[in-house]
Amino acid sequence: MKRFKGINTYLTALVTLLALSLLIAGCSQGEAMDPLPSWNAGPSKKAIIDFVTSVTTKGSPNFVPSVQRIATFDNDGTLWSEKPLVQGMFLLYQLERMAKKDPSIRTKQPFKAAFEHDKKYLHTAGMPAIVELFAATHAGMSQEKFDSTVEEFFAISKHPTLDVPYGQVVFQPMIELLDYLRANGFKIYICSGGGIDFMRGVSAELYGIPPEQVIGSSMKKELQQVDGKWVLSRTGKRILLNDKEVKPVNIDLHIGQRPLLAMGNVRSGGDIGMLNYSQGRSGPSLQLFVNHDDEKREFAYAEADNASLNAAKANGWVVVSIKSEWESVFPNKNRLENNDKEIK
Amino acid sequence: MKRFKGINTYLTALVTLLALSLLIAGCSQGEAMDPLPSWNAGPSKKAIIDFVTSVTTKGSPNFVPSVQRIATFDNDGTLWSEKPLVQGMFLLYQLERMAKKDPSIRTKQPFKAAFEHDKKYLHTAGMPAIVELFAATHAGMSQEKFDSTVEEFFAISKHPTLDVPYGQVVFQPMIELLDYLRANGFKIYICSGGGIDFMRGVSAELYGIPPEQVIGSSMKKELQQVDGKWVLSRTGKRILLNDKEVKPVNIDLHIGQRPLLAMGNVRSGGDIGMLNYSQGRSGPSLQLFVNHDDEKREFAYAEADNASLNAAKANGWVVVSIKSEWESVFPNKNRLENNDKEIK
Repeated sequence: MKRFKGINTYLTALVTLLALSLLIAGCSQGEAMDPLPSWNAGPSKKAIIDFVTSVTTKGSPNFVPSVQRIATFDNDGTLWSEKPLVQGMFLLYQLERMAKKDPSIRTKQPFKAAFEHDKKYLHTAGMPAIVELFAATHAGMSQEKFDSTVEEFFAISKHPTLDVPYGQVVFQPMIELLDYLRANGFKIYICSGGGIDFMRGVSAELYGIPPEQVIGSSMKKELQQVDGKWVLSRTGKRILLNDKEVKPVNIDLHIGQRPLLAMGNVRSGGDIGMLNYSQGRSGPSLQLFVNHDDEKREFAYAEADNASLNAAKANGWVVVSIKSEWESVFPNKNRLENNDKEIK
Repeated sequence: MKRFKGINTYLTALVTLLALSLLIAGCSQGEAMDPLPSWNAGPSKKAIIDFVTSVTTKGSPNFVPSVQRIATFDNDGTLWSEKPLVQGMFLLYQLERMAKKDPSIRTKQPFKAAFEHDKKYLHTAGMPAIVELFAATHAGMSQEKFDSTVEEFFAISKHPTLDVPYGQVVFQPMIELLDYLRANGFKIYICSGGGIDFMRGVSAELYGIPPEQVIGSSMKKELQQVDGKWVLSRTGKRILLNDKEVKPVNIDLHIGQRPLLAMGNVRSGGDIGMLNYSQGRSGPSLQLFVNHDDEKREFAYAEADNASLNAAKANGWVVVSIKSEWESVFPNKNRLENNDKEIK
């Protein structure tokens, strides 16, 4: 017995020591660990960490309970590269499949213009042509059929110049930001002009965002019985674009709260409404734009009327310079950050 | 040293014993504890527990990962009593406030009919009259103003015959069911014909359901700048009713998955579409209806064409008899289960 007692005591001491050393290691690691390693030290990184610290510190005048920690992110150009628009590539992928069955569509408008990248035609033809292209490629099937088509597209398609699956054109600093916010009790939503169902096809895998936290453009669907089974049929009618002042309307519909943090990017002014809406919440909030100013590692492009940067200046929103504030851009840095930039 | 070693050994033994006894107590408590104490033993309770056990048991052929454990519930008549419709009482509350400022509305239609409970007039006047009543009482204000009005209504109003705040006309067995499902990794949504913003005003407090998990009828809103602040204005235009075949469409829009479990109630056939949609998911699923057959403790009412019960029979859905399967109906049993049933 005595011998066993001795062993027990020894084991107890050992376990205690082990636990203590783990605790100490954990603390010092916690202090030293950088939650945003792909962000250079600078104003944006500081603004993010200061804000998150302030709204999550109990007793802070800016403390926000976790049920109100809602963050909304645009997708194209904010979470992943938008040159080219991935959903545009899916549209072409669907047109190619259609052309295999019926080659005559290559000579019919507006399909001809899409095949030939004839932006001038599409610009002149306007929304009716765009709606026709989307209806032809995104509708006329059940929701389940569309989901499996999107899955197939992502499994076999590659970025035209970077030559990697589209899953690798996500921005590494943004992946870290999503993880950092989640670790601090934020619930993260995508709120994008992209198609809600197209994005749901990859949001969980790429960003850890489940389908119910994706808000996007949508089309009218109808419950129909097909071969004895009830399905939602994608009608192609009444396409609702989730852009500009519609984003706040859909955030309200899906979430029912103003975002504590909202982030978009400079290109079309499509995120100004969402950032205004976030800033209008009572209490603290943070708004950010990604600015695409890095021709070498990604792409450099601005907004014709400069509306987003003007709004940022007027409202005190954070503008993130890819060139100076992101230490790396893509997860697979060496392979991707020397692209030939054919796509603009 | 030896003395301390002895004490340490004693403490270790004590802690180990304590831990073991807690573990044993925990296990036996777990086995004995009834997760649905307000449900009588019977076919519905058995169907629920068997289903939840089967989809949450790893290795079971019916195992469903937690990300797919989505449950959708109708609200009026399913989670709380719908005699009278609480939102109808809110509409009258708003009309009374309007009449204080402008008594002439008491003599103008369709307001007159609402004040006088003139169902015949409203039935003849139809949807345009209903829309006018909703627009007058639920619109023409910012979203924030509406939210505070709903909060005020719930703080000061009482059920006309039960004489308790509306928060006490929730169904105790349903509260237990929500808790049981949550404890088993389910994510719970309301999907109701009730107004999305009206329900969001109490869903967290009554059911533990956050605003982003509420789906309901909605109206067009517009982002507007008022006194320098961006707000969503409730226009009263384009009211979208979340009922019947529209419920699956909105579940898809908000959640992006078919529900693993869907539950409504017998009254209007409004939940048949949602239950069909749930049953159409690939893999296991469970559908249930509450049947209001207890005139003594709640209310007894049926559906004119019996469509819900017919669909339940044809599709193998569970029909929950309040009279025989609920041991108690309301949380405050003694006070509420002898009402005078003036309201039908």
